[in-house]
Amino acid sequence: MNFSSKLLEDAVNEFAKLPGVGQKTALRLVLHLLNKEQEEVSNFGNAIIKLRQEIKHCAVCHNISDHLHCEICTANKRDKEVICVVEDTRDVMAVENTSQYFGVYHVLGGLISPMDGVGPADLFIDSLVQRVATSPVKEIILALSATMEGDTTLFYLYKRLKDFQIPVTTIARGIAFGGELEYADEITLGRSIITRVPYENSLIR
Amino acid sequence: MNFSSKLLEDAVNEFAKLPGVGQKTALRLVLHLLNKEQEEVSNFGNAIIKLRQEIKHCAVCHNISDHLHCEICTANKRDKEVICVVEDTRDVMAVENTSQYFGVYHVLGGLISPMDGVGPADLFIDSLVQRVATSPVKEIILALSATMEGDTTLFYLYKRLKDFQIPVTTIARGIAFGGELEYADEITLGRSIITRVPYENSLIR
Repeated sequence: MNFSSKLLEDAVNEFAKLPGVGQKTALRLVLHLLNKEQEEVSNFGNAIIKLRQEIKHCAVCHNISDHLHCEICTANKRDKEVICVVEDTRDVMAVENTSQYFGVYHVLGGLISPMDGVGPADLFIDSLVQRVATSPVKEIILALSATMEGDTTLFYLYKRLKDFQIPVTTIARGIAFGGELEYADEITLGRSIITRVPYENSLIR
Repeated sequence: MNFSSKLLEDAVNEFAKLPGVGQKTALRLVLHLLNKEQEEVSNFGNAIIKLRQEIKHCAVCHNISDHLHCEICTANKRDKEVICVVEDTRDVMAVENTSQYFGVYHVLGGLISPMDGVGPADLFIDSLVQRVATSPVKEIILALSATMEGDTTLFYLYKRLKDFQIPVTTIARGIAFGGELEYADEITLGRSIITRVPYENSLIR
């Protein structure tokens, strides 16, 4: 692209580094910002810079936090003996949005993925084992994505955790609520038949 | 959404103000930035702040520029007597990319749009008339989008410019190169039949 201004070119190139944002979208976003008040644009830029400079990760669960310990780990009414293991902070938000979970979390910071060069040592797995070894835990819920990386990580975590004699569970897989059988893939449908539950257990309490 | 951090929430909300970016996309972009080096993120934020603070608009053609006069208006080899009137800087870039135009530009800064409350006084139309009145001009090319707003603006500009006795032209409309007739809309196809040109004129020189 032929830019009429170096400043414009720099800003567009920075935006175009974001995932899923190409040069044309970047230009559209930058021109949108150019039409805004100077203060608004400064707020935008500073919010991002400040986030990166001042963000902390909870020392216990590694979730993104403004303090050394996150709000969930310090909340009195959360059950500290139930740990839900998730990939990243988005999954914490997703589980929190359900209002169905009252334990605490452990954020791995990713999934084991040999293709991307991510091994167990790159994730907060040792710190999970440490946590389980040093504090009373009555259940570990593994809530990972049902992908190849998720399954690999599940298997590795199970191997590391099974000697503690603590129940290790995974979230249920099956047909989604509102899902139609004819559009479900055969693996999900097949597994949901094998792992069928008594009708009275399936009722939402 | 339940954010675990105020800093995170602020950054996501700022991103979500951008056109076409919702809360989920904003969160994805912010988490992407969080994984980057602090310096990279500072460069991103500062490029935007600096752009908004230091950007100038060319005093002659109103295109975005780093200086008081843009590179096109100051270039010796551009024909200052041919003015191409466009909506915004993206259109300047689009025309420049064709390498088929050697005159100068006039950026209106938008199109007349009563629906959005944009009238002629909000655009650089008076400055175009002033420019035509005070300097020698041999042709004015109106290169505006073929939308309702574009046509309204075309008509208004023609009314304001016709007394100067200077040829006012618009870019050709018709079937795009590579376009198939069966998929063309009837208005475009109909107009392209009415405004047909002798075959020898249609050859690209």
